[in-house]
Amino acid sequence: MSEVYAVRRTRLRECCNAGGSAAALVSRPANVRYLAGPAPEGAVLLLGRTEDLLVCAGPPDDRAPHNRPDEALRLHVMPGIGGDPAVAAAGLAAGQGADSLAVEEHHLTVARHREIGSVAPRLRLAGIAGAVEQLRVVKDEEEISCLRIGAEIADQALGELLESILVGRTERHLALELERRLVDHGADGPAFPTSVATGPHAGRPGHRPTDRRVEEGDFLSVCLGATYRGYRCEIGRTFVIGTAPADWQIELYDLVFSAQRAGRESLVPGAACRDVDRAARQVLDSAGYAEALPVLTGHGVGLEIDEDPQLTPAAMGKLDACVPVTVEPGVHLPGRGGVRIDDTLVVRPEADGGPELLTITTKELLAL
Amino acid sequence: MSEVYAVRRTRLRECCNAGGSAAALVSRPANVRYLAGPAPEGAVLLLGRTEDLLVCAGPPDDRAPHNRPDEALRLHVMPGIGGDPAVAAAGLAAGQGADSLAVEEHHLTVARHREIGSVAPRLRLAGIAGAVEQLRVVKDEEEISCLRIGAEIADQALGELLESILVGRTERHLALELERRLVDHGADGPAFPTSVATGPHAGRPGHRPTDRRVEEGDFLSVCLGATYRGYRCEIGRTFVIGTAPADWQIELYDLVFSAQRAGRESLVPGAACRDVDRAARQVLDSAGYAEALPVLTGHGVGLEIDEDPQLTPAAMGKLDACVPVTVEPGVHLPGRGGVRIDDTLVVRPEADGGPELLTITTKELLAL
Repeated sequence: MSEVYAVRRTRLRECCNAGGSAAALVSRPANVRYLAGPAPEGAVLLLGRTEDLLVCAGPPDDRAPHNRPDEALRLHVMPGIGGDPAVAAAGLAAGQGADSLAVEEHHLTVARHREIGSVAPRLRLAGIAGAVEQLRVVKDEEEISCLRIGAEIADQALGELLESILVGRTERHLALELERRLVDHGADGPAFPTSVATGPHAGRPGHRPTDRRVEEGDFLSVCLGATYRGYRCEIGRTFVIGTAPADWQIELYDLVFSAQRAGRESLVPGAACRDVDRAARQVLDSAGYAEALPVLTGHGVGLEIDEDPQLTPAAMGKLDACVPVTVEPGVHLPGRGGVRIDDTLVVRPEADGGPELLTITTKELLAL
Repeated sequence: MSEVYAVRRTRLRECCNAGGSAAALVSRPANVRYLAGPAPEGAVLLLGRTEDLLVCAGPPDDRAPHNRPDEALRLHVMPGIGGDPAVAAAGLAAGQGADSLAVEEHHLTVARHREIGSVAPRLRLAGIAGAVEQLRVVKDEEEISCLRIGAEIADQALGELLESILVGRTERHLALELERRLVDHGADGPAFPTSVATGPHAGRPGHRPTDRRVEEGDFLSVCLGATYRGYRCEIGRTFVIGTAPADWQIELYDLVFSAQRAGRESLVPGAACRDVDRAARQVLDSAGYAEALPVLTGHGVGLEIDEDPQLTPAAMGKLDACVPVTVEPGVHLPGRGGVRIDDTLVVRPEADGGPELLTITTKELLAL
């Protein structure tokens, strides 16, 4: 595993050197994890002129083997208490004789940036923009395997919930039960706050569970995900409560299903992100739901639940093989509810069987 | 309630005007909530030259009455999608004719700050440092009442756990069960990730629950808190598993209890923060545990779980009446475990009965 991290750091170093910086300071937690392995909270990574250092405010806990930072990296534990590892790292960079340091300006606050400037006044501070985020877009098979296990866990948790009695239970209870089941099945924890939306709430993206109880005739939409070894996946499904869905429910469900399928089927290496978005969006658009549509129809997943690429009408760029993304169109009708269907898939060439579906829970409309 | 928010905004405006800024942009979520009430995610508050605005990326959800932003504030919902409310607010400030804007440099990233500068190039950007955080330190009785209810909820959840069988259950399961019970009793959610630490993990501050199971003879330390209407409290207790604690366990417990009591008893209006820290710390120090002590022995709580004041050896400043703080000394012995005892209290003058203990679960050493 150590070699993987070293290769990633080499790629970032090349990118910084090309930009004229001898050293780089990585502070955004998911980026530190990508380049250094699981690190203590608040740790930063210095790609130094003479040596790379993982700078932490305190010693790491005793941790399970898969939960330790890369052993090839030297750990610099700050001597005092309460200091800022980013500031300390800048001092160390200057001590190594670097004259410029590339920092993550999209993560450091103005106040921290200024403090870095004041401890190392001779250091020219440059930006590395989203360099590490760009490296993170295409995943290796080890990363995809973590996502696959996370997706299995989420499928299991959801499957068990569907076997229980739902009517009369609140959104909040169902969400908590799902999160407990994720952990039962081996997740580090939920990948994001679990969303359970009933009746008029159903289909609303990012709905926060309330005390509303599940009722006969409701749409019930659920969105959850597991974190496994740091990697986060996502699944969303919509169900109907009761013996028979109403006609409008069947129609709306079929429509969203078609849109989601169109999105999934357009996931090929080389496809423009905006074209994937359009494939899903135009199905809903042409059925008259242009107003009810969310901002995006999907996004990358990995060490964070919302990564590049973004599948939106204005997105630039194309999909590569081995990029995991969600496809999650939905329609929400204020006061009535709605439908969302959300899968995590990995872009694969057609020769390898096309997009790999990680979240395999059925997408038939179940009446529960 | 609306008047409360208006008074808070007036105080901040006075502070900004004194610093030479006609307008202020508040972006840190807890600060926005303090000045504007519960706001949609990512919303920012503009204290403008002619009018105050709550700037949001999208319309607020339909929400419960106690979960809506201050109705006296005009809502500015951004027309496009995917924009940054802070950048939009700067444009609105310029449009109101402001020539300077105070921003939260400890919250805005370098990249956002630069974008603000580029949409409103004539606006001089100044800093408001921790002005809102300072306003937040002393709480009103409404805020304290939310903390009190949150503490009752945490006490209930912990009390119920103690009645169940613990041996053989994992730290992760116990933590999840506590979080479920918090929500059952009316919390918005946990105030921070619940910590359950058994055996050699016990007493470690901020321990993340693992799959270790509770065993006979273990120390078991638990730290949890409820969020109630946005306000976060904290309670920590340590127990012994089995019929009779060992002598070293009793001794260590008594010592930490004495330290915690010394800290609690020193909570009077006008006390220096470092003296409260020292009162607790020196009990442990003089028993030979100087090395095993954490960085702080307590901190403020409120809309965030870790606010000013900090109770540390280097802390500046004094305690005022109506400041809620934790007192949470502990000792962790690597390989053996340890003890933490943590209460949330409100500083009150002696004439009002002295410090008000919000978390009332017993601090006797219970053998479970």
